[in-house]
Amino acid sequence: MKTAVVLLSGGLDSATCLAIAKEAGFRTLAISFRYGQRHAVELAAAQRVAKALGADRHQIADIDLRVFGGSALTADIAVPKDRAEDEMESGVPITYVPARNTIFLSFALALAEVEGALDIFIGVNAVDYSGYPDCRPDFVAAFEAMANLATKAAAVDGKKLTLHAPLMHMTKAEIIATGLKLGVDYGLTISCYDPTPDGASCGHCDSCQLRHKGFTDAGIPDPTRYA
Amino acid sequence: MKTAVVLLSGGLDSATCLAIAKEAGFRTLAISFRYGQRHAVELAAAQRVAKALGADRHQIADIDLRVFGGSALTADIAVPKDRAEDEMESGVPITYVPARNTIFLSFALALAEVEGALDIFIGVNAVDYSGYPDCRPDFVAAFEAMANLATKAAAVDGKKLTLHAPLMHMTKAEIIATGLKLGVDYGLTISCYDPTPDGASCGHCDSCQLRHKGFTDAGIPDPTRYA
Repeated sequence: MKTAVVLLSGGLDSATCLAIAKEAGFRTLAISFRYGQRHAVELAAAQRVAKALGADRHQIADIDLRVFGGSALTADIAVPKDRAEDEMESGVPITYVPARNTIFLSFALALAEVEGALDIFIGVNAVDYSGYPDCRPDFVAAFEAMANLATKAAAVDGKKLTLHAPLMHMTKAEIIATGLKLGVDYGLTISCYDPTPDGASCGHCDSCQLRHKGFTDAGIPDPTRYA
Repeated sequence: MKTAVVLLSGGLDSATCLAIAKEAGFRTLAISFRYGQRHAVELAAAQRVAKALGADRHQIADIDLRVFGGSALTADIAVPKDRAEDEMESGVPITYVPARNTIFLSFALALAEVEGALDIFIGVNAVDYSGYPDCRPDFVAAFEAMANLATKAAAVDGKKLTLHAPLMHMTKAEIIATGLKLGVDYGLTISCYDPTPDGASCGHCDSCQLRHKGFTDAGIPDPTRYA
């Protein structure tokens, strides 16, 4: 049985990604990060999701991105609310965390190397991607190329490491439909950038809006608990 | 004045690298990592070096690589001693930390993005590289390509990010000669994988041996304090 490392945030996309990796027959090692995010309730969600979907292990790594400042998700900057779709689509939003996916994937790579895994799953998406540069196909391909030169398994032992981004070309509605077929309980996930301390979603940030639209487009009742 | 981020470990190579970045006219932001290393005295050395060479800022980021285990530098595995040169040259040693340079460079990339820097310096070296896969020219080139797709500055604003590895093709003796010309005080640096708690070097690990040979080859008295 092959092992895959799966980046798990507690959100809708990464939960679907974990279900896809399981369905593909991998032993799954989920990894989440305590990175100084304001919405730490997402770690509780990640733990619920890992358990419900039967991840073989779930590891939380501590990294401090607050030293860098520069993002509404880690610094004391207001999360934008009730933006129109065309506003969301223009430019990189303040909620972008500098180099976050690069850092998360580097840790996933370390875990993969230690565990002898040659597959990494990340739930990035180029359709409803909120303007983050590190969610695009070119970035994923370039990280995979780099990873194949970075590790002992790849560089010395000649093994090929694959970075899977199965949601890349799906709409949010397609992601939800895929996850429901694989048994994902989206009521366990949280996508909000600005949730209440007890884990209710604000309903107004970009992420809440994209998520709600996804359920509407999929014709599925939105299971999200809103504040 | 352009800004560069410089990875600074407290060792001989990265100190030289910082001096080279200063000499090239960059405003320098040094970054070091508290990553669960057994030889934490290297962080004290990094602070001394940053101060002595006049880094404009020195930041220490906390990251926990111990969750991964798998290396003599972070786990409870004995550091190999008194290995012959051909032994050092065969294969990846146990002191290799999985994906370490990938992780360190990812943090440097985040800092560069927040600070508007387009230059990152890393003191890796393909000649006396101790068999680490993530010290080779191909790896550096692949990381640079990935970085140019990962950040807002590069991906959206079209700015070119450069990853400098000025020591790549130098011998240890050449590195030392270069640093001395630029005013590096190597007595402030520490390279040992297994130093005493007060910062004396063991003299027997691969790193101590390569370093001592470098001073000998350069015809310079070795300023290292040995246990």
